[in-house]
Amino acid sequence: MEGMEKIATKPVGITDTTLRDGHQSNLATRMRVEDMVPIAEELDQAGFYSAEVWGGATYDVCHRFLGEDPWERVRILKKVMPKTPFQMLLRGQNLVGYRHYADDLVEAFVEKCAEVGIDIFRVFDAVNDERNFETAFKVIKRCGKHIQGTICYSLTETRMGGPIYNINYYLEKAKILESMGADSICIKDMAALIAPYDAYELIKALKKTVKVPLQIHTHYTSGMGTMTYLKAIEAGVDVVDTALAPFALRSSQPAVEPLLVAIQGTPWDPKIDLSKLLKLGEYLESIAPKYRDFLDTTKMSVIDTAVLKHQIPGGMISNMVSQLRQQNALHRISEVYAELPRTRKDLGFPPLVTPTSQIVGVQAVLNVLFGRYKMLSKETQDYVYGLYGKSPVPISDEIKKTVLKGYKKGKDPITCRPADVIEPELEKVKEETKGLAKDLYDTLIYALFPQTGTQFLKWKYGLEPVPDKVKPKTMEEIKREDEAIAKAKAEAQKK
Amino acid sequence: MEGMEKIATKPVGITDTTLRDGHQSNLATRMRVEDMVPIAEELDQAGFYSAEVWGGATYDVCHRFLGEDPWERVRILKKVMPKTPFQMLLRGQNLVGYRHYADDLVEAFVEKCAEVGIDIFRVFDAVNDERNFETAFKVIKRCGKHIQGTICYSLTETRMGGPIYNINYYLEKAKILESMGADSICIKDMAALIAPYDAYELIKALKKTVKVPLQIHTHYTSGMGTMTYLKAIEAGVDVVDTALAPFALRSSQPAVEPLLVAIQGTPWDPKIDLSKLLKLGEYLESIAPKYRDFLDTTKMSVIDTAVLKHQIPGGMISNMVSQLRQQNALHRISEVYAELPRTRKDLGFPPLVTPTSQIVGVQAVLNVLFGRYKMLSKETQDYVYGLYGKSPVPISDEIKKTVLKGYKKGKDPITCRPADVIEPELEKVKEETKGLAKDLYDTLIYALFPQTGTQFLKWKYGLEPVPDKVKPKTMEEIKREDEAIAKAKAEAQKK
Repeated sequence: MEGMEKIATKPVGITDTTLRDGHQSNLATRMRVEDMVPIAEELDQAGFYSAEVWGGATYDVCHRFLGEDPWERVRILKKVMPKTPFQMLLRGQNLVGYRHYADDLVEAFVEKCAEVGIDIFRVFDAVNDERNFETAFKVIKRCGKHIQGTICYSLTETRMGGPIYNINYYLEKAKILESMGADSICIKDMAALIAPYDAYELIKALKKTVKVPLQIHTHYTSGMGTMTYLKAIEAGVDVVDTALAPFALRSSQPAVEPLLVAIQGTPWDPKIDLSKLLKLGEYLESIAPKYRDFLDTTKMSVIDTAVLKHQIPGGMISNMVSQLRQQNALHRISEVYAELPRTRKDLGFPPLVTPTSQIVGVQAVLNVLFGRYKMLSKETQDYVYGLYGKSPVPISDEIKKTVLKGYKKGKDPITCRPADVIEPELEKVKEETKGLAKDLYDTLIYALFPQTGTQFLKWKYGLEPVPDKVKPKTMEEIKREDEAIAKAKAEAQKK
Repeated sequence: MEGMEKIATKPVGITDTTLRDGHQSNLATRMRVEDMVPIAEELDQAGFYSAEVWGGATYDVCHRFLGEDPWERVRILKKVMPKTPFQMLLRGQNLVGYRHYADDLVEAFVEKCAEVGIDIFRVFDAVNDERNFETAFKVIKRCGKHIQGTICYSLTETRMGGPIYNINYYLEKAKILESMGADSICIKDMAALIAPYDAYELIKALKKTVKVPLQIHTHYTSGMGTMTYLKAIEAGVDVVDTALAPFALRSSQPAVEPLLVAIQGTPWDPKIDLSKLLKLGEYLESIAPKYRDFLDTTKMSVIDTAVLKHQIPGGMISNMVSQLRQQNALHRISEVYAELPRTRKDLGFPPLVTPTSQIVGVQAVLNVLFGRYKMLSKETQDYVYGLYGKSPVPISDEIKKTVLKGYKKGKDPITCRPADVIEPELEKVKEETKGLAKDLYDTLIYALFPQTGTQFLKWKYGLEPVPDKVKPKTMEEIKREDEAIAKAKAEAQKK
């Protein structure tokens, strides 16, 4: 067939993200395990390379908002999905929490993940500092599981290139991860920035640079996702991430169904049965109304075109807007847009992904409102001190001096691996949860989320009643709501 | 740059469909001219190859639901958009109405279109019968305007090929249209069926077969649209159809913004300023709430994956479902799905586009409910008699005999150009509109839509008051509605 001059000789693998990133991106991670179980067996039979079912925000949202034991979710799914490898997203030394944890906690957490059924660990770090992978990699390997070394894709202009995030940056990072024992390499494009021909060039070059399989992960936010996958597949990528259509597109992954038809009949065709996926999609449509309150419907457009221009993730913009609104300073948003690249430059051009996106965003707003670095967030100081790792470009002495003036930990940043300055904490949290936690799984919920974790454990063991807001919405409630809304609308439309 | 082995040497043209197919596909054609004018000037400066502003359903919806003179819309826009060529969609001998019209009416209509400012006429026919183009082509040429000869893209299986809609079918049609004087050729993929590598192969082959420029038109319905455009561009297509993001995607065209970034820096880059398009998009978001009631939000998915499997346009399915429901026979939908390809085969495999999609759909339902061809629609009989033109594959004598038994016009189908059996009608409609129509434009509104056209002319000349439902929705009304809905929802969610 024409148009595919350089033909790869094997089918592309497809990772299904429906049960994790699909609903995390579009429905605020609210999908409950009881709505997953009815299709889990068929999903398992579909022929996916892997199923991403956990990690990222699931651990947090499960116990905090759904009253659901995150560990139990994996166990339940594993029982009905024994065939397809389970994949999770792990933020390196950050695990699935909001700070860096001590090595002993990382070890315990990764071991328990492996124990409940995670097979492939996609490990990433917000500043692509490979030292934040060391402990996780070691334990994953010891558990006999698959290490996916991950590089966050970032840009300083509209397209790949320039002095920092050029192709060599990614090739060098990939070589380091491979040498550290990664079983595969993933390019993680959380902000949907990677353009199709850049993906082509990058995958081609990576194929020549490393021996391990390559996976690409993007989002549909910018509207380029399916084009990017097509060119990545042409370049020989081994695996791509997609979701079933109802939980795909918008801020989520590209949909799997159109991609399958696009590559049908090519050497890359994974021969997944489309009819089966359509049935799974119909099921998802049937339960989707339960989660519709979490779908962002403020805009008519289903993509965020602004990200194409300034590379700022949508979530980061809404955070800055709400920070400005609280200060009655929304009219200064264009100053913040102008300040943002300057702040990012000062901080050594970190990729804009949680938590660096927040650090840069918050500081940029403070810089506009109070003068540059007159007011500092604790996180900016921690970051400049080195607690998040090495920034892609060194921070200037001037910025270090300004930001660390009066910082409680000192004025000289650390240069070691960030976790080297964190005291062991496993024994301490075991002590603190005595009487409440029944096993190490329980303890780990508390260790990562002390406050909401304690609350959850009280619900779990019947020490406190589960509040109504944590209980699932029923289809009857949705029907009642629909009727009330239709009535109110009809009334309002009567002039 | 790698990945683009066969490089075209010139920028691709972009037709913007925001003001026609964009809102026709996603918002039931409801956008009013007063919401177009504020961005018309900037749209005109953006650098589009052409702007599709009229045709299809706009003529009908304007006068019927918006109380807006369809001719006046083009005049108003032309004044503020003198630079960008205006494009319209014309259904051949069908014009923008629901039946074939006499040659004298087609002549008058096309002349008036040229007069108000249409520069490019995209002429298509539901069964790709070029004889239905003859009169329109002749008049367009006489008016010195651009004839875009259009081929409806259709399939009998998931991908291009098979005995009917194979690549030769399209090449032969293109040669005929070129020989008839077409200034360009368009592949019109109204059901979003064309897969990326098929588009590549088709455009490559067309480039070798005809000399005139090639344009491709698809919809995002199946989720393949942007991939298809990328491969069509690689194959050397001259122009593609897109819409601004808020009115793109879903059932509409692919969005322009991600495509522009994808081809930025390639020889195909049309160098349209993305920042300007983002501003236009913001404006569209600001007026979009006025039309939100027409957006289909019944499903979570923003694409229709079922079309990938059975190639049936979504609108056709919903028509069949409502036909079955009226007969209390919704449980027989799977029989209808099975019957549909048989009925389509019997009728000579017409492309499934208005009106053939309705003819095939209605007859398939009748065949299931009452026995095959026991009950016949008038349209099926007209179609088999030849009034819509030649079917792509000849209809068997057996089907002809069965369908035309007792048909008032006779049992022997016509083989001439359908319009050859239509009596001139211009003088008749002029006579009928005496006293009401002030000019030929008025007369033509009546000629195509006698009932709603008469009603509109009465509104236009103050003979009857314009009813409230025809008046535009105001932002205050939307705000009131929002408040009422939010209140009702909050009430319903209080348990």
